[in-house]
Amino acid sequence: MDYSGKTMGEAFNALKTRLADYTHFQQAESLLSWDQETYMPPGAVVDRGEQLATLSKFSHELFVAPKTGRLLRDAAKEDVVAGNPDSDEAAIVRVTLRDYKKERKIPVDFVTELERARAQSHQAWVEARKASDFRHFEPWLTKMIDFARRYADLQGYKEHPYDALLDRFEPEMRTSHARKIFAQLRDGQAPLVKAISAKADAISDAPLHGHFPREKQIEFATRVSKQFGYDYNHGRMDFAAHPFETSFSARDVRITTRLYENFFNPMLFGTLHETGHALYEQGVSTAFAHTPLEHGVSLGIHESQSRMWENLVGRSHEFWEHFYPELQATFPEQFRPVSLDDFYRAINRVSPSFIRVEADEVTYNMHIMVRFELELDLIEGKLKVRDLPEAWNARYKEYLGITPPNDAVGVLQDTHWGIGLIGYFATYTLGNLASVQLFEQAEVDIPALRDNIRAGNFAPLLQWLRANIHQYGRKYSPDEIMRKATGKPLSAQPYLNYLKRKYSQIYGL
Amino acid sequence: MDYSGKTMGEAFNALKTRLADYTHFQQAESLLSWDQETYMPPGAVVDRGEQLATLSKFSHELFVAPKTGRLLRDAAKEDVVAGNPDSDEAAIVRVTLRDYKKERKIPVDFVTELERARAQSHQAWVEARKASDFRHFEPWLTKMIDFARRYADLQGYKEHPYDALLDRFEPEMRTSHARKIFAQLRDGQAPLVKAISAKADAISDAPLHGHFPREKQIEFATRVSKQFGYDYNHGRMDFAAHPFETSFSARDVRITTRLYENFFNPMLFGTLHETGHALYEQGVSTAFAHTPLEHGVSLGIHESQSRMWENLVGRSHEFWEHFYPELQATFPEQFRPVSLDDFYRAINRVSPSFIRVEADEVTYNMHIMVRFELELDLIEGKLKVRDLPEAWNARYKEYLGITPPNDAVGVLQDTHWGIGLIGYFATYTLGNLASVQLFEQAEVDIPALRDNIRAGNFAPLLQWLRANIHQYGRKYSPDEIMRKATGKPLSAQPYLNYLKRKYSQIYGL
Repeated sequence: MDYSGKTMGEAFNALKTRLADYTHFQQAESLLSWDQETYMPPGAVVDRGEQLATLSKFSHELFVAPKTGRLLRDAAKEDVVAGNPDSDEAAIVRVTLRDYKKERKIPVDFVTELERARAQSHQAWVEARKASDFRHFEPWLTKMIDFARRYADLQGYKEHPYDALLDRFEPEMRTSHARKIFAQLRDGQAPLVKAISAKADAISDAPLHGHFPREKQIEFATRVSKQFGYDYNHGRMDFAAHPFETSFSARDVRITTRLYENFFNPMLFGTLHETGHALYEQGVSTAFAHTPLEHGVSLGIHESQSRMWENLVGRSHEFWEHFYPELQATFPEQFRPVSLDDFYRAINRVSPSFIRVEADEVTYNMHIMVRFELELDLIEGKLKVRDLPEAWNARYKEYLGITPPNDAVGVLQDTHWGIGLIGYFATYTLGNLASVQLFEQAEVDIPALRDNIRAGNFAPLLQWLRANIHQYGRKYSPDEIMRKATGKPLSAQPYLNYLKRKYSQIYGL
Repeated sequence: MDYSGKTMGEAFNALKTRLADYTHFQQAESLLSWDQETYMPPGAVVDRGEQLATLSKFSHELFVAPKTGRLLRDAAKEDVVAGNPDSDEAAIVRVTLRDYKKERKIPVDFVTELERARAQSHQAWVEARKASDFRHFEPWLTKMIDFARRYADLQGYKEHPYDALLDRFEPEMRTSHARKIFAQLRDGQAPLVKAISAKADAISDAPLHGHFPREKQIEFATRVSKQFGYDYNHGRMDFAAHPFETSFSARDVRITTRLYENFFNPMLFGTLHETGHALYEQGVSTAFAHTPLEHGVSLGIHESQSRMWENLVGRSHEFWEHFYPELQATFPEQFRPVSLDDFYRAINRVSPSFIRVEADEVTYNMHIMVRFELELDLIEGKLKVRDLPEAWNARYKEYLGITPPNDAVGVLQDTHWGIGLIGYFATYTLGNLASVQLFEQAEVDIPALRDNIRAGNFAPLLQWLRANIHQYGRKYSPDEIMRKATGKPLSAQPYLNYLKRKYSQIYGL
């Protein structure tokens, strides 16, 4: 292609047009997936798979076509990009070129083979979990580990094959850095878990069990999410078996939740969690509209936002100083007899348990640590898949002091490995750690932050997050985001300090 | 392309693969449209337009590419097609080739120009209707009529440019045939409308106004639609401002409805109407899955199904002999004091009115006749757009005996013309007529049909429709469908006889 007037940004404009088509395809795919999890009739599941396969084939071909590469390289030379390396235009070229190079390294045969295996592997996992029979899943997990190793070889890596796996979900995160963080966490957190476990009976969560009528739960959770700043003119809430947030563009960001009438926590805290994800996506700058940059940068930074609104805000004493009277008015029979402090303790009760998704703030990272270490051992070949259940149980005993009674609530509990998601779990913990590191910086920058929360005023915090994180979309790497916002790389120390402070007070340690 | 083993159906198989991609695109587009009408946040409307534009551009390019034509022509020569012209395979090639030739005749520039104009024209119509100001819409309607004439010239036609417009919605219907049918209808129906109007006060619909709690309405309408045979494992019901049925494939057929707590009719009869459409789409043979034939053949035949279930079944005395006790139990305060016969008369009350979508069974076709005749005059140049409101009002006076007080409830009431749908309205009446012609044949073929309905057993009727209409999808033309099912071409006579019989009894004429 010849763009004679290079300074005019002709290549850049042609690139934008192409990326718009590509992102519109991806937005359509996301809507099909959203529908599948929310409203699609069960009998349409096979059709939906074929629709998604067609769309992803076309969007993939569009993206990895040599023309995309030429446009990227031509645009990179134009003044609009080359003349201003920190501009949004330069970011669009830089980040998309990174995606392009990564996608080009993976042959379409590999993708097809993996897709087919994933479907069968997922099915085998479903059956294995139902029967609590790891042997039924073992050959498929072996395949998935093998795919992960092959993927790392195709993609290439600097230090460790696991770098390539982490990079899918947490761009530029190195295994060595993650190891350091997890080691710091293990040393700091294990004593806290032990100390709290010794006083496990000090707190009761009985007030959270009872009868919470459906409509009132929906009304209350929606009200709080709006007050956080979630814009329902560009969003909506629906129900799904496994709650999630999905964003087609910053103008259409949807969350899902689930509700039990006999247990208070899942609906409210689930909604606040997904609202945190949604606020991130709604805050991306319009400069990145119709480009692949119009999303959060990584799973870890995304989780930092969801956990911040769920835990640092939603489980804080200040938050409930504001909202508890409203909550008592909403569920008077249930909460009038319960003091604010008893309620605050109940929602922050710590209890080591087998199931990750039900874990509290303190023990959650221990569940992740088990998975992170086992993944590394599997990828390095130190651990054989057939020995995995034993290794799993040994680590649960070591980190949480409990031994799963069977593999269904042990090594088979999560869907991730069965569909080839290796390198994913670590981002949950990276997100937890980032949430505190970022929040502490926000406290420094907004001296009245806790008073704001006590007054039900969340705008200052949201503005700080918009300015330091949301607006950038995928412009900066997670590491750049952390350094720009907090002046430091990601560390476990703020999180450890936070846990000790909060839970020493709650448990009187 | 060289398919050396022509008898092997290699070209046919390659064609099927290509059509699968094409239909999956269309299914995705339909889901995006469904979402837009049901759940999409309002702030996403511009994005949705761009997503749809991208998908339809790619699917259009895929379909009209020369490769599609080559595959169609090569497949037509293979034994699997050429050896069995009445086979489903031959139909797939024949019908798709017809579509292909039609789409190839319309230059992409024309499509783009029309799309852009439509958006503005629709906006002008919205504003004009709001202000009841036809002059504001006039220039846009003039453009739309011009587009329609140009479309007819591009597409070509045998006898009349309007043939090409009708053909978009009612394949192979000729203007001359439609004219004959409408003339027959006008002569037969006008006296009936007059006779009933003279006794307008004989029937009250007061029992249908009152208080009908939302959940009970939903429950009752859902129950009836299930009993008709609508399979909710491959379907679902949602709410929309303008109810519709949409089908992605026969495995995912969705309806929408609307509900007023103070008026009984819209929810129940609207649901039965859309259920009729849905039953058609759910009944298409799996032989046409992943091809463009997996839909009803025309708007007219589609409307015959919706009107049959809504009116011939749902407003029949037999139907209510079965369901009225259930209805009384559902809404006891409202219906316990009302006899079955009074209820039956109320839901069949005839009353000439200005608004088409609120019209009863008898006057409905008069609304369509006005539009059909005016469209013909506009396309033939006999009528100028600026004289349209006057012509509209004159015909309402002539056919319905009433004169609209303003253009908002007159010539501006429908959205169709503003978005370029000329030739569409006629299909509503063609569908009404077909519904009776088909139902009468079903009565001949199923002697116990009315007793079945009286017993709440709709399976025999559905089986008859499946066998004679649904399964064929787009395999046969509407005319072929009518001749195969009833032995005759479409005629107004059965409908006229039905109206006279039913309403002479109701109104004691």
